[in-house]
Formats: sequence, C-alpha cells, structure tokens
Amino acid sequence: MSQGRFITFEGIDGSGKSTQARRFASYLEGQGRQVVLTREPGGSPGAEEIRQLLLTGDTDRWSAETEILLFTAARRDHLEKTIQPALEAGHTVVSDRFADSTRVYQGATRGDLRGIVDKLHSLMIAREPDLTFIIDMDPETALKRGLARRSGEDRFEEFGLSFQETLRHGFLALAHAHPKRCVLIDGNRTEDQIASEIAAYA
Amino acid sequence: MSQGRFITFEGIDGSGKSTQARRFASYLEGQGRQVVLTREPGGSPGAEEIRQLLLTGDTDRWSAETEILLFTAARRDHLEKTIQPALEAGHTVVSDRFADSTRVYQGATRGDLRGIVDKLHSLMIAREPDLTFIIDMDPETALKRGLARRSGEDRFEEFGLSFQETLRHGFLALAHAHPKRCVLIDGNRTEDQIASEIAAYA
Repeated sequence: MSQGRFITFEGIDGSGKSTQARRFASYLEGQGRQVVLTREPGGSPGAEEIRQLLLTGDTDRWSAETEILLFTAARRDHLEKTIQPALEAGHTVVSDRFADSTRVYQGATRGDLRGIVDKLHSLMIAREPDLTFIIDMDPETALKRGLARRSGEDRFEEFGLSFQETLRHGFLALAHAHPKRCVLIDGNRTEDQIASEIAAYA
Repeated sequence: MSQGRFITFEGIDGSGKSTQARRFASYLEGQGRQVVLTREPGGSPGAEEIRQLLLTGDTDRWSAETEILLFTAARRDHLEKTIQPALEAGHTVVSDRFADSTRVYQGATRGDLRGIVDKLHSLMIAREPDLTFIIDMDPETALKRGLARRSGEDRFEEFGLSFQETLRHGFLALAHAHPKRCVLIDGNRTEDQIASEIAAYA
C-alpha cells in the first residue's frame, strides 16, 4: 500500500485555518479517502498531556527554550503515535498546525531561537508535510475573531496586534522559502470561497 | 560574590546516592555554607510536573526519543529556575542525579541514542557539574535495596539485574571518561564510611 499524504494548515490565530482543515478533511472523506484530522500541540494522548503543560498556567511559566523542548516532545509523540501509523496505513493526515507554527511563533518571540528550533527539528522530528496551506489574512480581523472565541488557552493571542503582524510576516516568509511544499491562501474571503480553492488540491 | 559550586550524585538505583547527597548537604550546612539540595527529574515546580509525565503511566507510554526530550525540558527548567539562581547567589547546589543519569540510562536502553542525548545536552543545557560523585556498588545488593523501598515511581528498576549491570558499567565508563569532574566512590561499605570519604571533598 502506498504512503498517505501528510497535509498541514498554518496561519495566525483567527485566520480560519482550523475551520478550513476540518472542511478539507470532510471534503476528502466525501471523495472516499480515509482521513485522520489532527492538531498541534496535541494529537495523541501523550501529546495532549504535554499540551496542558504548555497552554495553561502563567504566561512566563516556561522559558522560550523549555517551551521549544516541550513542543518538540509533543510533536515527536504525535508523529510516532498518530501521524506515521496513519500514513503507513495509506490514510491522508490533515493537521491543524505542525512544525511551521513553532518556527514562526518562537522566531517571532525571540529571533535568536530560530537556530535552536531548526536544529531540534532536524535531530528529533525531521519529517516535513507533503503539502502546507498557509492561510494569510489581515491580523486586525484575525485578532478580533480570535478574541471573540477565546478559550483561555490561546496564550499567544495576549501579545496583541503588533505580535500578530510579526507572525503574519513569519508565515509569509516561510511560504516564500518553501514554494514547493507551501501554498499561500488568501484568507480575506468567505469561508466557502477559501474552501473551494483548497478543494482543488485534493 | 563568587559563584557557588554545583555538585551531583550519580549511581544506580539503591546505590545510596540520595542518602549520601542528603548527608553531604547537611555536612556542608554544618560548615556554615548555604546549600540547595535538589534532585532530578524535578527540582523546580515545572520540572516536577514533567517528572509526573515521565514516571507514571505505562512503561511504554513514551518512546525513548520523546523521553529524552522530556528529560531535557525538565532539566532546562531545573537549571534556570533552581540551579543557576542558587549558584549566582553563591550557594552550593547538591543534586541527586543530573545529565549523567540520562546519558547512562538512555544509553543502556538503546546504545544508538547516546549521540542524540549528547547533541541535545550541548544545544539546550551545556552546563556540567563542578564535581560528580559516582557511587559504585554491586548491582544485586542495590537492586534488593531498591525493590525494598520501591515507590512505584522508579520504573527503570523493573528491567532487573542485567539492566542494572549495564547501568553500572555505563557509570564506570563515565567516571573513566571524565576523571577531573567525577570521583568514583565505593558504595559497598557502611553509610558512615562512605559519608566520611565524601566529606573530604567539602
């Protein structure tokens, strides 16, 4: 049996990437594919426990370096327990966030960390998605959406608009650096318009 | 104010290292030093939470790779929140286990992991103790002691005698490889005899 495709959705909070990941997974299922829809941080029982350590408690609970190690531990577990077994069974894996989020968020928090993030990724994860949709949108609109549905868990949103703008530029730079793997999607349109553009990649 | 000394105790389970770490810390306090007695995994509030993830649940809950990432995350937090501030205040830090335990335990579980352990240490921890006591003792006696006081948390003990023998050789090799930092202590003697030998390094 051939390996399944590993597809990720990335973008700032409130960009609609979770909604689009869900819609794309449903679309693929409608086409008769077997799909595993997952998310980060989390996506496996162990990684979900690490997620709790990462997303609850005080904002300064962990240093940026410890946070990167915990994100990488969660990702390794997610990869081993959920993503790889599904791909080996020939299923399509659709993940709401993956390594690109760590690259962009940690890099935006402290630029000097990007080297550490990349070295840890090479050493412990190595795997890249086959296809990544980067949903780009106006940070002000995204921030309002994010705040409207805030769960208390999305601590990064607390940094406000200028941080969201830095993140947006981080994702745009990533799309530019990896044109084969990344598809940039204009998120400033209706949900249906965006979903139909993405469906063309099924 | 000058930096304090960072001293670690290492050895197989049941070797008496925790007892000797405690006695040495008391001895130093009796000499008028300010001492922080700590342990791994754990030693800071965040690292203690990671310890819970590492030492509870099924033995195969985490892969060796994820385990190394979690140990390194806990160590980074321990170093930042407990060890470094104490050393900077001029205090002596005495830790029951540190990076040598990860080197020896993970190396004994799967030899090919030692390279990953060393790379992660260089990238995220870098700090070595100023002095390490390696308590060497007969694995059979140590195993009986360890089983007698088992807390249900020391999962590594489950691997039995041949695993303890592999660990012992790992610690001996480490002492041999780092003769300036490591002092090998014969643990097959009374607690008082061992404590008085160690006290000479105060």
